[in-house]
Amino acid sequence: MTSKARCSAPIKQRFPLEAIHLDPALKPPLYRQLEEQLRQIIWQGTLKTNDPLPSSRNLASTLNIARNTVISAYEQLTVEGFIQARPGAPHRVAEGFPAPTLNKAKTSTKAAVEFIPKLSQRTNTLRQASAFIGAQQSNPPPQPFRAHIPDYKEFPVKTWAQLYNRRLKHSSRFWQQAVHPCGYWPLRQAVADYLVMARGMRVAPEQIVITAGVQQSFELLAKTLIDPADKVIFENPAYTPAAMVFELAGAKTAYVDIDNEGLKVATLPASGAKLLYTTPASQFPLGITQSQSRRKALLAWATKSSTLILEDDYNGEYRYRGRPLTTLYSMAAPGQVIYLGSFSKLLFPALRLGYMVVPAALIEPVANARWLLDRHSPPLEQAVLADFINDGHFLKHLRRMRVLYAQRQAVLITTLENELAELVHVTPLDGGLHLTAELRSTVKPEQFFTAAKNASVALSSVAQFSPQTTPQADRQIIFGYAPYTEKAMKLAAQALMRSYLKT
Amino acid sequence: MTSKARCSAPIKQRFPLEAIHLDPALKPPLYRQLEEQLRQIIWQGTLKTNDPLPSSRNLASTLNIARNTVISAYEQLTVEGFIQARPGAPHRVAEGFPAPTLNKAKTSTKAAVEFIPKLSQRTNTLRQASAFIGAQQSNPPPQPFRAHIPDYKEFPVKTWAQLYNRRLKHSSRFWQQAVHPCGYWPLRQAVADYLVMARGMRVAPEQIVITAGVQQSFELLAKTLIDPADKVIFENPAYTPAAMVFELAGAKTAYVDIDNEGLKVATLPASGAKLLYTTPASQFPLGITQSQSRRKALLAWATKSSTLILEDDYNGEYRYRGRPLTTLYSMAAPGQVIYLGSFSKLLFPALRLGYMVVPAALIEPVANARWLLDRHSPPLEQAVLADFINDGHFLKHLRRMRVLYAQRQAVLITTLENELAELVHVTPLDGGLHLTAELRSTVKPEQFFTAAKNASVALSSVAQFSPQTTPQADRQIIFGYAPYTEKAMKLAAQALMRSYLKT
Repeated sequence: MTSKARCSAPIKQRFPLEAIHLDPALKPPLYRQLEEQLRQIIWQGTLKTNDPLPSSRNLASTLNIARNTVISAYEQLTVEGFIQARPGAPHRVAEGFPAPTLNKAKTSTKAAVEFIPKLSQRTNTLRQASAFIGAQQSNPPPQPFRAHIPDYKEFPVKTWAQLYNRRLKHSSRFWQQAVHPCGYWPLRQAVADYLVMARGMRVAPEQIVITAGVQQSFELLAKTLIDPADKVIFENPAYTPAAMVFELAGAKTAYVDIDNEGLKVATLPASGAKLLYTTPASQFPLGITQSQSRRKALLAWATKSSTLILEDDYNGEYRYRGRPLTTLYSMAAPGQVIYLGSFSKLLFPALRLGYMVVPAALIEPVANARWLLDRHSPPLEQAVLADFINDGHFLKHLRRMRVLYAQRQAVLITTLENELAELVHVTPLDGGLHLTAELRSTVKPEQFFTAAKNASVALSSVAQFSPQTTPQADRQIIFGYAPYTEKAMKLAAQALMRSYLKT
Repeated sequence: MTSKARCSAPIKQRFPLEAIHLDPALKPPLYRQLEEQLRQIIWQGTLKTNDPLPSSRNLASTLNIARNTVISAYEQLTVEGFIQARPGAPHRVAEGFPAPTLNKAKTSTKAAVEFIPKLSQRTNTLRQASAFIGAQQSNPPPQPFRAHIPDYKEFPVKTWAQLYNRRLKHSSRFWQQAVHPCGYWPLRQAVADYLVMARGMRVAPEQIVITAGVQQSFELLAKTLIDPADKVIFENPAYTPAAMVFELAGAKTAYVDIDNEGLKVATLPASGAKLLYTTPASQFPLGITQSQSRRKALLAWATKSSTLILEDDYNGEYRYRGRPLTTLYSMAAPGQVIYLGSFSKLLFPALRLGYMVVPAALIEPVANARWLLDRHSPPLEQAVLADFINDGHFLKHLRRMRVLYAQRQAVLITTLENELAELVHVTPLDGGLHLTAELRSTVKPEQFFTAAKNASVALSSVAQFSPQTTPQADRQIIFGYAPYTEKAMKLAAQALMRSYLKT
């Protein structure tokens, strides 16, 4: 066979010569190394039952080793039932060869002691993230009433794929190259245009920093703003993964309570806080909208106490009643508010793109931090998103989803009133993608969650987002509604009720 | 116009009602707010010269404000030359309306003092990254002899686009959903298969962690392994952006010199180092391959001093002479070596995907850290890469590039010998994507770099990657060759020579 012919043959059907790396310098003799590597090749499925092996003469000459080395390895594997040979025919992979031991590292021919790395103390803080991470390999569709998920099935997949294709066909030189850490310039322009247009904000494209989402925005701000022992104030309850990032950067976190107008500004300290994180449009996780007077008071406090405000405009785009809200950013003095936006809830979470609006002084430090963190977001996604916005699809999708989600909220309320009124009491909200409902005084939280679990209904409580678990937070149940049909919500509520009655 | 008709009209041609956000609670009166926002809309180009504005009656009723408010705003904008009206016709955007002032934030009607955030002390360390970051908006193709870039023009763009399309068409449910922070499972399997096959390594898919590239791998390891004052050892010269990440995590960095066999193991401290970072396949930036005996000595030292080794297999795949090299990972006891790989140099840097092979004890902490950092890499890219590997394109591309790059290295050597022999002396290497050349003793580095700059030839020296600038590092010039044709290299070398003779 010529070298040319070999190269064009499908790789999976050839004997995987690349897999064999023998090293005379290693302790195990060459025949043991070969043996072990052939086992791996068979276990990996690269060679399957009945696939032929090269003759011992051929393999020995290709690998530049003695023929006896190959013969020894083949003999051992024959004994173990990995391969078999008939006279005059090549060795082939045997049917029903032994399965690998569970931990492949343990099959090492070297009897070495495993080195256990000493983990950093930070890993204790990191461990809190475990509660949010799903199973390693599964990716199930969302079940009612899991919250914080948009209805990605409504996303205009075809349009997005068309824009992708246009870029793939016509811009390959571009999408293979790097972009600036702050983002692909036309996307920064498109986001600035959107904020001016749709949110009435005063921003220049230079202030827009494209990130891998709000979570990375936290990390970049923690790196560029926080020195050890700096005080950062969060709402209580709060989006706790944000607090974790600032704690990892050395910040001391403090919490301020929420009432039905938003965070209680009167209880804020007079000075000493570096940063305050807030979700004024739709408080996370309670869904309360910060009142206009509270916003003014918050900004007055921030100016007086020299505190920077971090405005996470969580679900700001999803407002179903009343006037669209002015952002804190628009109301504040320049530089006082850093604004965080995300495309996860607006388009689909797998996109991994979000943005910040930062004051001029932060642009360069954030660019440096991003370059050291992971360089930049993938340019192709950035270009496709820029097209999606500039071609008008983004605002169109938003408008459509606003109508759909408003309907779904109404459906959820009806469903809870019809099916679960004995267990929970729910209040409508002006926006957002979920509601929080209060357990009736007769219902015990443990019993309720056991019933939900037994009925395979996905529910969590505000307690998951409270710095300290309180009896009250345990009784506030989060019901997501965005991606669920009327039927799915009704079935889930009925299943939960049946399950509760059985407990 | 019905609401339906309005929705289907192209957005850019409608008057952008979404842009108008008036707030009676704000200080500037409503007509000033409207005025200012109309200016912004015109400056953003959303309304262009001759585009009509709604009648004052219509706009007032839509915004639910007094008609006089709109009339006042229109009058002011007419005076300023932004809009104009003819009797009986609507107001239109005027030709040659005034340009925006440079800093849009300054045009605010509020006379507020700008708030300047106090940056963290870390931003001093971050600033070192500035030297590596290109211009904000430009994205020029690479010029000889800029290094550390693969020849992305040789990448099988069509194949990649086809795989993308297959996923876009058939897996939309999938690519819209999240994946595990450690990566899309089939990609983790594909990478493990590749490492077993092509690099002879003993790894299970669970040990593979997909990252946004080597730089993010550093960050994840710094977060999970480093406590303040932990000692991390780097090669000298070294890939300095790695050191910056560990310094940001609080590590104390130390350096060990390189000779022609790799890092000088004999000069390593007997104990006290937590981590040692090395590039054994092709030392960064010198290109030296660590000898087999030095590798053994390094691992013996690591075991004795209980130091974890970080093996960055930089350019390990690009070896043009001699046997493929066994990785340190393969030679070491389980858990002793963390292996870092990247797809940036193998496919294209804009992909933003890389991986680590970590010991079992690190899998969960790294997953937690990644979730808090930015959740996970985009699933679509991960799925396409898995297909690219599994369908055999990856190994095929690598084989092709290995041949091409070996030729290009030979061409670079000939070019330097023919055109620049009076200035530099160059030694071939067994692999990699660049060479380092020594300035002749008669050549002054400043004069050389001035000549290069004048000739628009992109060159840097080893000094850029040295913890302390030394006279020796200044004289070691880095010549990238991977993405450049024979003609481009020759022209650049000749231009440099002409420029040098003129200085």
